[in-house]
Amino acid sequence: MTLRFVKGHGTENDFVLLPDPDGEIKLDAELVKALCHRRAGIGADGVIRVVPAEREPEAAEQVHAAKWFMDYYNSDGSIGEMCGNGSRVFARYLFEQGWESTPEFSIATRAGVKQVRMSEDVISVDIGEATFGSATSTAVSGTVFPGNAVFTGNAHLVCVTDVPVDVLDLTVAPPLDAEIFPHGANVEFVNVISPTEVRMRVFERGSGETRSCGTGATAVGAWVLGNKPGSVTVHVPGGTLGVSSDGVSCQLSGPAVLIATGQWRGSQDA
Amino acid sequence: MTLRFVKGHGTENDFVLLPDPDGEIKLDAELVKALCHRRAGIGADGVIRVVPAEREPEAAEQVHAAKWFMDYYNSDGSIGEMCGNGSRVFARYLFEQGWESTPEFSIATRAGVKQVRMSEDVISVDIGEATFGSATSTAVSGTVFPGNAVFTGNAHLVCVTDVPVDVLDLTVAPPLDAEIFPHGANVEFVNVISPTEVRMRVFERGSGETRSCGTGATAVGAWVLGNKPGSVTVHVPGGTLGVSSDGVSCQLSGPAVLIATGQWRGSQDA
Repeated sequence: MTLRFVKGHGTENDFVLLPDPDGEIKLDAELVKALCHRRAGIGADGVIRVVPAEREPEAAEQVHAAKWFMDYYNSDGSIGEMCGNGSRVFARYLFEQGWESTPEFSIATRAGVKQVRMSEDVISVDIGEATFGSATSTAVSGTVFPGNAVFTGNAHLVCVTDVPVDVLDLTVAPPLDAEIFPHGANVEFVNVISPTEVRMRVFERGSGETRSCGTGATAVGAWVLGNKPGSVTVHVPGGTLGVSSDGVSCQLSGPAVLIATGQWRGSQDA
Repeated sequence: MTLRFVKGHGTENDFVLLPDPDGEIKLDAELVKALCHRRAGIGADGVIRVVPAEREPEAAEQVHAAKWFMDYYNSDGSIGEMCGNGSRVFARYLFEQGWESTPEFSIATRAGVKQVRMSEDVISVDIGEATFGSATSTAVSGTVFPGNAVFTGNAHLVCVTDVPVDVLDLTVAPPLDAEIFPHGANVEFVNVISPTEVRMRVFERGSGETRSCGTGATAVGAWVLGNKPGSVTVHVPGGTLGVSSDGVSCQLSGPAVLIATGQWRGSQDA
């Protein structure tokens, strides 16, 4: 078995894209895990099969609004609804490939149709509404960090703090209130640099600390803006993202690059 | 810039190979680091440029003994002398490519000419002599582990122990006697299953715990054999290796596979 692949990343959230114009690739959890394996595979945070919406039953209701479906899987093989940075890399590929030729277009995802917009080296995606939940808290190395639940498709705990985020030991999962987050949450620790600029680190449920998290940056931006219209620059360990809000819906923007193309030859267990 | 690459691994020590039949690729530390970056690059433990010995000045003295030179770099961009698992992946590539067509051939490395041998799915490489140094010790989580210095091109501290190696917390570098190891060493923790079978974990100088270490497995095998003729199976986290000795020189054997081929498009800093 060989599979054509493209590897790309957005602020160091990295993805293996599998172009599937004929809707022929059968993905299962084992194959996703093999592709994402950091040493025996290509290595990635997730896999995105690139398939025409009209060839994917899951996209049946979106086929009139978007040409391409983002069939997203997490590196553990589980199906993903949506991934903010992944959708930007997906859009970059469609545009470079010439499968979309206008700077604004729609993509089909399990979280619905999303608008993307390309502008020079920046790709923006409509993440949708951010909703605020309860005030709650977590702790790192014995220090309590108050925060607030924010939902952007995924559940987040946003903790704005004066403790420099660079010094936090995020090797251990920060504890969460299970009543507020019955399915867990990603936790963002945020230093506010100015009303329009913040620095964050993120601990992702099931993954540990990561270099970036698109829906997390969006949650942070929306929280800092109080869901009012405006824009915030969000520095993450893997780069810099922008979050803007029109008071209703949030946009996530930033770089997304394709770094390699190739042929996967199978894991050939060794 | 685009670069043709092959990715392969041996017991999950993974490498980016750069075929360079015309000796035209200029590698520097920045390019090596970009290629090896686990998220913004292809991701690997090291880079191996595959160049004809006759086109590489460093291989001038080996050109009559070997056709191909293994130009090896560690993931931090530093030049590497030799890498046991890397040399087996290098040999796999030469054979699959048809650049070597016999099951036994010689390769040129910075550590001299090495013999390799292919047999079904196993590739063996001659690591050379293992020499034993002083008895010394290290510690993990407050427990002292006695061991012995063993040199196989690289410096190793081999600690045979009854403590199950699976339970050790190897997130912190085990301390070393600087008089015995002025340049540091890799530390192997070893459970002896039988006189011919051991399990090991390894903490590599500068890298932390890794899935496999070819010269480390060789050091362990040689130590268990007391440098007498014989063979030992060495289970590492990333797979299984074999070490055999004729009483003078050690052979390292195990799987080596190529999992992808492709074109690197440059890191396109994002």
